[in-house]
Amino acid sequence: MPLQLIPEVLCRYRNVWNIDLRFRPAYLGGVIHLSGNKPPATVPNKALYMTSDLERLARYCSVPVCFPANPFEAMFEKGSLNAMRFLTAVSEKEKVGDSLVEKVSRELWKRIWSTDQDITEPASLSEAGLNAGFSASDVEELLKLAKSQQIKDKLKQTTAEVMEHKAFGLPLVVCHVDGKTEVFFGSDRFELMAYCIGEKWLGPQPDKPTAKM
Amino acid sequence: MPLQLIPEVLCRYRNVWNIDLRFRPAYLGGVIHLSGNKPPATVPNKALYMTSDLERLARYCSVPVCFPANPFEAMFEKGSLNAMRFLTAVSEKEKVGDSLVEKVSRELWKRIWSTDQDITEPASLSEAGLNAGFSASDVEELLKLAKSQQIKDKLKQTTAEVMEHKAFGLPLVVCHVDGKTEVFFGSDRFELMAYCIGEKWLGPQPDKPTAKM
Repeated sequence: MPLQLIPEVLCRYRNVWNIDLRFRPAYLGGVIHLSGNKPPATVPNKALYMTSDLERLARYCSVPVCFPANPFEAMFEKGSLNAMRFLTAVSEKEKVGDSLVEKVSRELWKRIWSTDQDITEPASLSEAGLNAGFSASDVEELLKLAKSQQIKDKLKQTTAEVMEHKAFGLPLVVCHVDGKTEVFFGSDRFELMAYCIGEKWLGPQPDKPTAKM
Repeated sequence: MPLQLIPEVLCRYRNVWNIDLRFRPAYLGGVIHLSGNKPPATVPNKALYMTSDLERLARYCSVPVCFPANPFEAMFEKGSLNAMRFLTAVSEKEKVGDSLVEKVSRELWKRIWSTDQDITEPASLSEAGLNAGFSASDVEELLKLAKSQQIKDKLKQTTAEVMEHKAFGLPLVVCHVDGKTEVFFGSDRFELMAYCIGEKWLGPQPDKPTAKM
């Protein structure tokens, strides 16, 4: 499942599973490079498949996503470094319960994966920030912060942390249950996640109905 | 989902979905080469992930699979060419309803993915054939047939056909519905398959229950 669908589906499951869902911005380009992986779309047939797969999944999940008109430019030439630095800056400002990273993250994926808009220019990031509920002056501050060494280092640190979980791509879903960690790549594993996290997260299951004779 | 789990899960859904499930042996090494893809396990972190993912999926699907003790030898040095030629020979002998390819295929994956046994030597293929219900003389004939140019060509032809569906790996599930074709890679797409094939395959859906006021 493409990366932009996963957080949306996780958000839907959040209450059902009763989980504390946290968004941690990391840099996909770094993960691909550090793991020695290649972007999947560099294999032509895989790129074709991803397009039809995305169309079907979008309908299935009711999440309005589609490939940008020029995916190569959007994904490889422009990339997500600026967006992830901006999100990292947002994460510094986030307070418990205000879901700012989630909101800005949603605005950003909607731009690139739904309305085919830029996510690298300051004006684009501003718009995402404003739509997520930040004030104009907050957004200014965030843009400045996003360029600071502190934020660059923090994004590197989160990306390094992702690599400790043996990542080879993103998104990576790291589930913490009872002191144990289960790592899931991509998002074709929601049933498996539910199965692995088991009763601890799902809460006590209702008794099986007894057949009345 | 690893390749050996997919046919098993599809076999379970066969009656529920009321589908005509056909096994078509093709050569994974050929598909990887022709598509310009790389085997996933060549990225070290991906190989690690595949191991833990397989363990979880095996429990979840209740299919007794685990990695061979020496996966590199099993997958890359030995490969599946002999096994696929043997299965192609079996497919020549198959009659409607006797599911011979399915049965031999199951015996073969159980060897490599469950009991960590060879699937390249004639003795190994024989054992798989015998366990699937062939007589000793049938197995002898199949082993001879598997080495023939006719069978080598047939496997090449099926692999070429897979490539026409823009494959970059196997298994590939090709669904034919109402003259249309939907192609699914891997097996993380069972829900999506069910969704795409829709009412035609699933049969008429029951009306939504009406709330009684």
